[in-house]
Amino acid sequence: MPNPTAAMLVIGDEILSGRTRDSNMHFLAGELTKHGVDLAEVRMVADDPDAIVKALRALSKAFDHVFTSGGIGPTHDDITADCVAAAFGQSIDVRDDAYALLNAYYTAEGREFNAARMRMARIPEKATLIDNPVSIAPGFVVENVYVMAGVPSVFQAMVASVLPDITGGAPLLSQSLTLHRGEGDLAGPLGDLAKEFSDLSIGSYPFQKNGAFGANIVIRGTEGARIDAAMTKLAEMFA
Amino acid sequence: MPNPTAAMLVIGDEILSGRTRDSNMHFLAGELTKHGVDLAEVRMVADDPDAIVKALRALSKAFDHVFTSGGIGPTHDDITADCVAAAFGQSIDVRDDAYALLNAYYTAEGREFNAARMRMARIPEKATLIDNPVSIAPGFVVENVYVMAGVPSVFQAMVASVLPDITGGAPLLSQSLTLHRGEGDLAGPLGDLAKEFSDLSIGSYPFQKNGAFGANIVIRGTEGARIDAAMTKLAEMFA
Repeated sequence: MPNPTAAMLVIGDEILSGRTRDSNMHFLAGELTKHGVDLAEVRMVADDPDAIVKALRALSKAFDHVFTSGGIGPTHDDITADCVAAAFGQSIDVRDDAYALLNAYYTAEGREFNAARMRMARIPEKATLIDNPVSIAPGFVVENVYVMAGVPSVFQAMVASVLPDITGGAPLLSQSLTLHRGEGDLAGPLGDLAKEFSDLSIGSYPFQKNGAFGANIVIRGTEGARIDAAMTKLAEMFA
Repeated sequence: MPNPTAAMLVIGDEILSGRTRDSNMHFLAGELTKHGVDLAEVRMVADDPDAIVKALRALSKAFDHVFTSGGIGPTHDDITADCVAAAFGQSIDVRDDAYALLNAYYTAEGREFNAARMRMARIPEKATLIDNPVSIAPGFVVENVYVMAGVPSVFQAMVASVLPDITGGAPLLSQSLTLHRGEGDLAGPLGDLAKEFSDLSIGSYPFQKNGAFGANIVIRGTEGARIDAAMTKLAEMFA
């Protein structure tokens, strides 16, 4: 059975303007690979309701799971929750369960639970909450969309909260070999190898170091024995 | 007049599996912002012809310019050129101009110009070549799509080759202010400021440092005087 598929939607002007370098995509990619879920597409869009709603609908329809990051804080530019509600035709308002979590937290901390912070309790009517052990304000799940924070420490904690509930397939295994030859000298034999082992993904990632050419050859698949066999053949080819 | 819009398409299994951390997106975002081109969307897809062709067509139609990175080397997993030709209904074969460039280079270097390297001379019939001062194998432009290499040093050189030919609008200017208060305390006044200066983009990026909460407030726009005015007001609000 093929692995379940996933997409990610990164939301935020700061990423697209180059001000902030996204790190959540790379983190999620690694976690999903270990969990046996194939990350098939990533989109990054600005804080633009139309763009967010359109991307949510397209990705939710095309893939088994969708993970979003960004736009669920207390400020005016945090519009993700409203966009998710709009995308799936749900109403949205301050919800009792999220309100209770946040109220208890701010009361205990002696900080004001004001109107802005109450925005973080706005949750679509049919959503399930995602635990946030870092800063309490919850993420949530609507249909197959996991809505999570953009702050990396919170995003990572939320991913850890949701992954155990997602059925993964076989984790993607990989082995790599560094060859100190130009990629153009490797490409012919490598193409033959890829044809012979068509059940594996064989990638070639060239580099240039101190003027010398080389490439890292990465063989990926779900069966360790097959990867071993391809690796042995690869090593023989360039011995 | 609004700035021209752009999208980026990052192509490669290695990005989506989490093996390689993409750095081209962040580089391009910064360059486009300086050049006055609004990067509105980024997509990342695997080495999958259907996904690549579909994304190329959708982005080419929706935005003024599309920049791609990855998949134009000599190995079997380099399928971007063929996908671009397919997406725009052009034929593709080894082209004389690209062949001449590569042949001269490999001859001068005393390296074999073999069948695999000749793959890098496969260019769609109506494309214009993009100069590659780093490793010669050219990128190319088809309609509004700029097809460039994934290796960061080559990608960056190609961006430098093409940007002068793209008419930019007003560069996006920005100023930022770090406030040492919880974002929830800032959100109310900040929302009022965003309403008053609706021509500017006002973003709030929270952080937590040594247990204390804070946020970087970033005000972006194309008119320096407006940003100054909003910054002055912001500083007064939290003085």
